[in-house]
Amino acid sequence: MSLRLLHTSDWHLGRQFHNVSLLEDQRHVLGQIVGIVEQHRVDAVIVAGDIYDRSVPPAAAVELLDETVHRICNRLGVPMILIAGNHDGPQRLAFASRQLAGAGLHLAGPLRPQPEPVVLRKGEDELAIYPIPFAEPAIVRQLHGVEVASHDEAMALLLEQVRQHNGPQRPCVVVAHCFLAGGEACESERPLSLGGAGQVAPQHFAGFAYAALGHLHGPQHRGEPHIRYSGSPLKYSFSEERHRKSVTLVDIDARGQAHIETLPLEPLRDMRCLEGELEELLEAGRQDPRRDDYLLVRLTDTHAILDLMARLREVYPNVLHLERPGLMARGENLRLDRQHLRQGELRMFEDFFRQVTGGELDEEQRRLVAGIIEQLHREDG
Amino acid sequence: MSLRLLHTSDWHLGRQFHNVSLLEDQRHVLGQIVGIVEQHRVDAVIVAGDIYDRSVPPAAAVELLDETVHRICNRLGVPMILIAGNHDGPQRLAFASRQLAGAGLHLAGPLRPQPEPVVLRKGEDELAIYPIPFAEPAIVRQLHGVEVASHDEAMALLLEQVRQHNGPQRPCVVVAHCFLAGGEACESERPLSLGGAGQVAPQHFAGFAYAALGHLHGPQHRGEPHIRYSGSPLKYSFSEERHRKSVTLVDIDARGQAHIETLPLEPLRDMRCLEGELEELLEAGRQDPRRDDYLLVRLTDTHAILDLMARLREVYPNVLHLERPGLMARGENLRLDRQHLRQGELRMFEDFFRQVTGGELDEEQRRLVAGIIEQLHREDG
Repeated sequence: MSLRLLHTSDWHLGRQFHNVSLLEDQRHVLGQIVGIVEQHRVDAVIVAGDIYDRSVPPAAAVELLDETVHRICNRLGVPMILIAGNHDGPQRLAFASRQLAGAGLHLAGPLRPQPEPVVLRKGEDELAIYPIPFAEPAIVRQLHGVEVASHDEAMALLLEQVRQHNGPQRPCVVVAHCFLAGGEACESERPLSLGGAGQVAPQHFAGFAYAALGHLHGPQHRGEPHIRYSGSPLKYSFSEERHRKSVTLVDIDARGQAHIETLPLEPLRDMRCLEGELEELLEAGRQDPRRDDYLLVRLTDTHAILDLMARLREVYPNVLHLERPGLMARGENLRLDRQHLRQGELRMFEDFFRQVTGGELDEEQRRLVAGIIEQLHREDG
Repeated sequence: MSLRLLHTSDWHLGRQFHNVSLLEDQRHVLGQIVGIVEQHRVDAVIVAGDIYDRSVPPAAAVELLDETVHRICNRLGVPMILIAGNHDGPQRLAFASRQLAGAGLHLAGPLRPQPEPVVLRKGEDELAIYPIPFAEPAIVRQLHGVEVASHDEAMALLLEQVRQHNGPQRPCVVVAHCFLAGGEACESERPLSLGGAGQVAPQHFAGFAYAALGHLHGPQHRGEPHIRYSGSPLKYSFSEERHRKSVTLVDIDARGQAHIETLPLEPLRDMRCLEGELEELLEAGRQDPRRDDYLLVRLTDTHAILDLMARLREVYPNVLHLERPGLMARGENLRLDRQHLRQGELRMFEDFFRQVTGGELDEEQRRLVAGIIEQLHREDG
């Protein structure tokens, strides 16, 4: 027999991306997680920090979390263990946590002086899960009255506390929110401290049955396979284009061995980058069943294009960001050569004229426009 | 046998007054309420809205509420029923409310389609308490698909729902946050709507065993004694100087009769107004055992005084606001007479000189200053 945990983290409920609310995407993927909890007969759900995207989340994000814990804790009767990450407001997250523990909802907000495990039992098996919410070294210093200078020292101290509290016999899982040295970061994580000072050595976690970590958004393990980040359930930046988002299913057997499986999640809308010329992208998009995805578009066209965003969004409604490396490259050349620049302006006007009228400038018109551009430059000094 | 309720409201946790946080005062008075709950063997505590002062309360206010519900629900084992008022964020307040109900903490945030009573039992007795959180008429309209134009119509509808849900037999208490017509307002309540449109007729509440109301900060009843505002536990404006803040103890007997008693609360610091001349107030203050109170001071002195606030705060550390009716009156006269104004300025300078040097202007100095003032006015046009 063994106990089965579902490990997820970095939900970042209420997050916006390029001014678009991701709440519907979050609702969709949390629905999948609830389905997995039911289907795989999970014994407890762990969320390793950054539940919300900020300390004061929007009311709709609070409602979504409320709905999700209701489905997991009440309807499925599965306990949940949530810790505060560096994005969460620990006091807010932990409101009424002493009442909620009785209902199977374990919220670890502010760091407490003593480790307080959640103990799971199933038949003969017993497993202790120790939540360690995110805390600055200064908080650890203040709480324990000892000198800890770094996140590494603080975590070493907290984990030693856990070891002593749990004793050597009972299998034990820790839940923490930190940056393990050697971990692979991406653009959507907020650094825990400047210049890598926030890093923690993976070997501190070696002696535990499993370390359920949060903070890094890509699924990965460090040191040993059981020292693991589940990663976020959704991509939160274009730098995560190639991430395969998932949750981690962990079976802890009677000897305290962890057996790990990752289960993929399907987003409502994927997040990815497109590169090419406008016409080619528009053409491809009309056949693209995933054209609702959140897109970063890199246009290689080298000429000016009118109403660009509107034309893209007719086909790809969720283009969030546009880059024009084609134009940039030309722009850089232009800066080198004033004469070239003037020709460039004339060419841009030709593009414009073509798009508006559908025809070409004749010789007379061309001479006229070139003259006006020349004159403007003269006046400009 | 009967069931005993403690009715309070309008805690406004996290409120500031003249930029001073009242959290310590709130902690003090909530401590008294916990003591009363224990000492008077209360069966349930009702807080009739405006738990927090704003929809996003400061983290310290969340901690204070957490501590208070822990003491009442967990340590004393007494259930609590809290509704959202017009100051509260209903979704935020109601996070995990379905889990918390099992622990005896009943949070009514957003209005729900069906009335959901909290049922208290003691021996043979049974009492239903129906929480009706604050909701704009538009919300009631949307939820029930009926035309209600005003707070009065909305409340009539919701109370009729309660009546039908409860049936005619079981004694029934309603908890609501509204402005009863004829109610006595003060300066610290935020109007529910403009021009008195938010008023509700007291007779809607006549058929219930007790109506535990919130919104008005002065303790009072309207229509009948059992249709009652407990009032806020603290003064939140100087207009409440003469309020006697209290909680209401209500025994509901087996026949559904309410027996009402008010129990006074003692603030850590009172809020009151002082009027008089500076020297007289400073003198009295040195003997005043309550000189830490929050004060509005009305100085009747008619001359300018240097470092006024600093001098007052040496004796009364919590002077929050200063009015100078003496100066004002003079100021009004001065505006009538330009010549008089110049004399006024000279006199103000004499006051200033006296305070700085301890002596009087001599004739030569006086003439010099008068000349400068005259010159300034000339230059001024």
